[in-house]
Amino acid sequence: MNDLLYLDDLRVGDTFKTASHRLDADQVRFFAMHFDPQPFHLDDAAARQSFFGGLAASGWHTAATTMRLLVTSGPPLANGIVGAGAKVEWKAPTRPGDVLRVESEVIEITPSSSRPDRGMVVMRSDTLNQRGEIVQTMTATLVVTRRPARDPESSPPAPHQTEAGTRAVGVLS
Amino acid sequence: MNDLLYLDDLRVGDTFKTASHRLDADQVRFFAMHFDPQPFHLDDAAARQSFFGGLAASGWHTAATTMRLLVTSGPPLANGIVGAGAKVEWKAPTRPGDVLRVESEVIEITPSSSRPDRGMVVMRSDTLNQRGEIVQTMTATLVVTRRPARDPESSPPAPHQTEAGTRAVGVLS
Repeated sequence: MNDLLYLDDLRVGDTFKTASHRLDADQVRFFAMHFDPQPFHLDDAAARQSFFGGLAASGWHTAATTMRLLVTSGPPLANGIVGAGAKVEWKAPTRPGDVLRVESEVIEITPSSSRPDRGMVVMRSDTLNQRGEIVQTMTATLVVTRRPARDPESSPPAPHQTEAGTRAVGVLS
Repeated sequence: MNDLLYLDDLRVGDTFKTASHRLDADQVRFFAMHFDPQPFHLDDAAARQSFFGGLAASGWHTAATTMRLLVTSGPPLANGIVGAGAKVEWKAPTRPGDVLRVESEVIEITPSSSRPDRGMVVMRSDTLNQRGEIVQTMTATLVVTRRPARDPESSPPAPHQTEAGTRAVGVLS
């Protein structure tokens, strides 16, 4: 499972589980101070008077923590976890003390018709807390490279072939 | 324009523009180190060999910076900017030195049928760089409170009415 994964290795229905990360109040306030400075993410007393009924992490903090878990202990995609976009749904507040982990499933695989070295993978990632409640669902469209022909586990390289084909720029434009 | 905005004040087609924020390489690496530790967000030499062709901010950093701009200089929603979810599309890489700003438009307004104190607002926010290129489009579903009846600009309060109706918990569950 620690071998790098290429598009060719993935199947719809493949699942992945990450390690876990504990969010404390300092992390919640630190993220909020930099990126989402609203009272309900910064101050417990103010948060109790808000929609959230108590200090809650920014949804973007939950998303960023999900990304950290995916990058450090999620699917070992050969070209990294590179998203073209994502849909994020926040289903319950994330609170200080919550221990988050991510469970992912491959939903859709579409080889590129114009770029033979890659394809798009739709992956749903549920972020769960220590009670098993889903606090966030992220459905991301990832760019995943195909196994290069010169890879030793694949067919032998064609004459004069280089790795340049796997380094095309402008993937997101 | 600095008065607080309630659901009742918004109209489809309303637009908002934020101030701008300059992302430098230190910010890009700092965010990546904490939330998206992949070589193309951390190291310029590694990034040149990647899809990105040079150091690029994590997409989640662009999203978080967009949120910061919305919170600090975007629409002054009375209950803050509270999202139930968002769709994010990364259309071009964000690079160190880019100066980002956000232009938002109200796309849809739906008063809640079950909770008379609030409604859902779909707002599209384009994040642009200093060349006017859209690097990200974020389409968020926001929870926005209605103007409370006791508000001095509205009708006089009903007898015994309290603010409790605007503090209902569980908005996201």
